[in-house]
Amino acid sequence: MSEPLRIAIVGYGKIAEDQHVPAIAGNAALKLIACVSRRKAAPAGVPAFASIADLRASGLRVDAVALCNTPEDRPATAHEAIAAGWHVFLEKPPAATLGAVAEIEAAAVEAGITLFASWHSRFAPAVAEARARLAGAGIRAFEIEWREDVRKWHPGQAWIWQPGGFGVFDPGINALSIATEILPVHLTIEAASLDVPSNRSQPIAAALRFGGQGVPADAHARFDWGPTDRETWTVRIETDAGRLALIDGGARLLADGVEVPVSGPHEYPALYDRFLGLVRDGRSEVDLRPLRLVADAFLRGERRSVAPFED
Amino acid sequence: MSEPLRIAIVGYGKIAEDQHVPAIAGNAALKLIACVSRRKAAPAGVPAFASIADLRASGLRVDAVALCNTPEDRPATAHEAIAAGWHVFLEKPPAATLGAVAEIEAAAVEAGITLFASWHSRFAPAVAEARARLAGAGIRAFEIEWREDVRKWHPGQAWIWQPGGFGVFDPGINALSIATEILPVHLTIEAASLDVPSNRSQPIAAALRFGGQGVPADAHARFDWGPTDRETWTVRIETDAGRLALIDGGARLLADGVEVPVSGPHEYPALYDRFLGLVRDGRSEVDLRPLRLVADAFLRGERRSVAPFED
Repeated sequence: MSEPLRIAIVGYGKIAEDQHVPAIAGNAALKLIACVSRRKAAPAGVPAFASIADLRASGLRVDAVALCNTPEDRPATAHEAIAAGWHVFLEKPPAATLGAVAEIEAAAVEAGITLFASWHSRFAPAVAEARARLAGAGIRAFEIEWREDVRKWHPGQAWIWQPGGFGVFDPGINALSIATEILPVHLTIEAASLDVPSNRSQPIAAALRFGGQGVPADAHARFDWGPTDRETWTVRIETDAGRLALIDGGARLLADGVEVPVSGPHEYPALYDRFLGLVRDGRSEVDLRPLRLVADAFLRGERRSVAPFED
Repeated sequence: MSEPLRIAIVGYGKIAEDQHVPAIAGNAALKLIACVSRRKAAPAGVPAFASIADLRASGLRVDAVALCNTPEDRPATAHEAIAAGWHVFLEKPPAATLGAVAEIEAAAVEAGITLFASWHSRFAPAVAEARARLAGAGIRAFEIEWREDVRKWHPGQAWIWQPGGFGVFDPGINALSIATEILPVHLTIEAASLDVPSNRSQPIAAALRFGGQGVPADAHARFDWGPTDRETWTVRIETDAGRLALIDGGARLLADGVEVPVSGPHEYPALYDRFLGLVRDGRSEVDLRPLRLVADAFLRGERRSVAPFED
């Protein structure tokens, strides 16, 4: 058996602690070798560094990094990692702009390293089954409903409200990553409205109307971060052959209202399996369609000022 | 000599009348065969149709279309033209969203027709010379200043102020098309601020700060559509080997303050030469970097509400 891939996590926040660390610990082909963050946080027993420069200076051998810092900060750290010859796993969204990801991709190609722009929701257990059932189908109706309470899931995360912070598109892009994965047609943004709290830069809610060849007339999405007694992460598709509903963010699948049994690894373990496969094959995977839909929604969208938001 | 390429203009407004018609008339390898617009306008002697469907029904032979309608309307007409087997010349910007252009591009590839996403400013007389002088240069400073009075150049054009209408990025994207053409480095959007009149959806002014590998720290652009006694369309670059300034939108070039003689066809005649070459070679040219920079500026930009604008 070959040696495990030695990974450093950059940006040790909630997602790193809750998802990346257990996924790495649960995979014998991976080893968490270090963490990098300004406050030098890390799980017990794992060396922590304040910067990638400090990690390089330590002489520790590193094969790859998982970048879990903010989308704003990822490009600089990605270029440092690529310069060090390390493979790069990018949390979603891969960066704050499409151009920044394109530049990271060009650098990765030149360095001959693996770049994985990850979309964790695509690895939810029911997504592959939904994709298989939709292959070649005619789409009659399509709807995304993504409602979660921002105070519950993102308490005090100031960066999400700032320019480049995505606002409600931070969860919404998960829905778009599923939609672009499972649909046999291309989605474009036909119209969008963005509800922006009067004291913030980024939207707390958004409505999208989709266009595209083969996309039905009323295809749409609703993202909402407001208080709700009915959180939902649902994608509904009506085809020539019946109705599908991906619920709980892709964890479950209903076909004509009947539960379809699905299994397989959870999102982050599956993401790391994919990353390992890409590294072994010397390939990269960078699909920017979810981020492009978000950029197009900002480009084409109408902004409406709504009530101020206080954490 | 082969027969001329038979072109129909779709969207017969100011740009079609002022630029496309004379450029086509001045090229013996092209023939304006029809115009399509809701109000059925056309130059004297040219048949006019209200829709592409009407043009097809007429039985007139058409080889290509130039789409001069609004970016919002271009995708639908592009798909109709591609379905008819016609080559497609897109005015700038090619569509209101990146996704819509990607979908047009995929359809063009499948149909085996030529798609030309045109950026007229790249064909200004001094641009090729600037590009040649910058090849391989180290960039020390970079600045775009693009100021024109919207009341003078775009009187009563309501669509530019609406969602998807680009606002001051309508002229600003010309500067970005030049910058991406001439610079030996990739530009990304590091920060942006968009000044939006309180009664409109789109910005009347914008400030961009660029990032990217090899891009100097203070690289920036200023787009302004307000009243001014000093209209300017200028790109300034300082390199290891001296200073360049592209002025008058690329019509003139100064090297260390000294005028560099440039010549060659004007923008639209040069655009049509390129389109003819692409059609003859069976190739397409679709560079989305200028539009991507605009989308990234909307995605990442901070919006500031400014005084209302009345035409």
